[in-house]
Amino acid sequence: MLFERIDTECINDDETPWMPYTPYDENTLVKYFKIDPVRGESIVMLKSPPRGKKPKHHHTGTVIVYTIQGAWKYIEHDWTARAGSVVYETAGTVHTPIGVSDEATITLSIVTGELLYLDDDNKIIAQSNWKTNMERYLNHCKKHGITPKDLSTFAV
Amino acid sequence: MLFERIDTECINDDETPWMPYTPYDENTLVKYFKIDPVRGESIVMLKSPPRGKKPKHHHTGTVIVYTIQGAWKYIEHDWTARAGSVVYETAGTVHTPIGVSDEATITLSIVTGELLYLDDDNKIIAQSNWKTNMERYLNHCKKHGITPKDLSTFAV
Amino acid sequence: MLFERIDTECINDDETPWMPYTPYDENTLVKYFKIDPVRGESIVMLKSPPRGKKPKHHHTGTVIVYTIQGAWKYIEHDWTARAGSVVYETAGTVHTPIGVSDEATITLSIVTGELLYLDDDNKIIAQSNWKTNMERYLNHCKKHGITPKDLSTFAV
Amino acid sequence: MLFERIDTECINDDETPWMPYTPYDENTLVKYFKIDPVRGESIVMLKSPPRGKKPKHHHTGTVIVYTIQGAWKYIEHDWTARAGSVVYETAGTVHTPIGVSDEATITLSIVTGELLYLDDDNKIIAQSNWKTNMERYLNHCKKHGITPKDLSTFAV
Repeated sequence: MLFERIDTECINDDETPWMPYTPYDENTLVKYFKIDPVRGESIVMLKSPPRGKKPKHHHTGTVIVYTIQGAWKYIEHDWTARAGSVVYETAGTVHTPIGVSDEATITLSIVTGELLYLDDDNKIIAQSNWKTNMERYLNHCKKHGITPKDLSTFAV
Repeated sequence: MLFERIDTECINDDETPWMPYTPYDENTLVKYFKIDPVRGESIVMLKSPPRGKKPKHHHTGTVIVYTIQGAWKYIEHDWTARAGSVVYETAGTVHTPIGVSDEATITLSIVTGELLYLDDDNKIIAQSNWKTNMERYLNHCKKHGITPKDLSTFAV
Repeated sequence: MLFERIDTECINDDETPWMPYTPYDENTLVKYFKIDPVRGESIVMLKSPPRGKKPKHHHTGTVIVYTIQGAWKYIEHDWTARAGSVVYETAGTVHTPIGVSDEATITLSIVTGELLYLDDDNKIIAQSNWKTNMERYLNHCKKHGITPKDLSTFAV
Repeated sequence: MLFERIDTECINDDETPWMPYTPYDENTLVKYFKIDPVRGESIVMLKSPPRGKKPKHHHTGTVIVYTIQGAWKYIEHDWTARAGSVVYETAGTVHTPIGVSDEATITLSIVTGELLYLDDDNKIIAQSNWKTNMERYLNHCKKHGITPKDLSTFAV
């Protein structure tokens, strides 16, 4: 049975590859540690170019963001998230991220649910979720001849 | 501080009202027990007319459904959920519910995240989440002179 | 990969057996719908004899209780949970349940984390969690020649 | 109502203090970003001296650990978690952490549920949870004349 193989696991930095955030932004790099198809939770590292702006999106679940390097903000909020900060995003919030430092911004996020990208009239134009994350990961691995890990399992 | 007031709470059946599932379906009744604005989780009772069909929707998070009365199925699955059953819906699944019994179907659901209603081309045409649930609840209370409970808090 | 087999599933009432809540209480019956070894979440139906008292316990996580039949309370709280009610138990609370109706009480609970049973001095004397639930389930199946379902998986 | 004040928030590194992990280990420093009394989830930064060993403990829920600096392992596992790694700990696992680098190890953890500290016979000798975290935080603030933030709320 599945439970007999469930255990704590470590994924080191060099065991999972950086890849471009296709098709939205080839200059932003993303790296996946875990993509949970049961609850729709992804653990994601993001490397964004200095002073970049990302599209407005709506969150269907919570997001916890730890900033490793650089600094960024949401145009909807006054605060700036600097290296060492923790941002807790509650379900149903809308955000437009911008980088505010001269170096690349690197973050680690635990994302539950989906990001729904919005146009200027707040119409949904794209979805990001565990499925699109998994697709991006598998496509990248295939393209570069990398043997993919099964990031969807907690079994060892 | 908030934590000093957090405690276990009971909401009895007659302490929260039935209301029509406006604007989508006046014949389906809904009742809210908890609407959590932090994680986007709603605890919802639904009473659907016999042999009704509901629109196709995508789930951004998990849903646990306990069937109290009646029977229903998803056209995407072979099984039928009868009274006493538990359905566990995983994140990112798409469902079109239909009633399959001659009595009304009553269910209790713990819904995390959002329902994204889809048209025939799988385009998102409407969103259901903690905000739309809260809005429906508060509008119903206002219209009928009911003093609303704060279903969004775990403080007593 | 695991994600390719994850899907929504239904467990009907007659597809999972009642069993005594050994070794603590042979007169209370329990039935498992899901036992998740990743997050430590169990979906459990409980049938308790009329006017029974259960031992005091501490919750490490949340519990959502829907009462199907009967009525019960916690000696720590004033409210009574009747059929049709929803109780939301927050993490770190301590409870001593008693039945308050002349019929058996039947509840459905979504239990996250553990129940730590306490003696009169609030010392931990026993633990209940996904592992003890799974053990009870598998032992019961073995004893009665029932082929167990893999309640630990979300794969179909 | 509470939901009207719930919003995304940032806590920067210098907005929450380091404090010793009293009463267990004065040489390990801890810093709290969020202590959620509803679900029993804490977001915690830990700074452990080089090559330190921590007591064996059982987890009642999941823990996600991101390693910021240094390296560590569990004596129960073969892998070593180095800077940049993500460890996903499943519910019900038992761990004895040791530092394996010559510099201090700094980690950020999202801890759900409790740590139950165990003696050599696997008897529970202490509990760590949102309540003991909050107590440590408030005591430290009081002792050092720091005005505490309400880390238990998601309201702004």
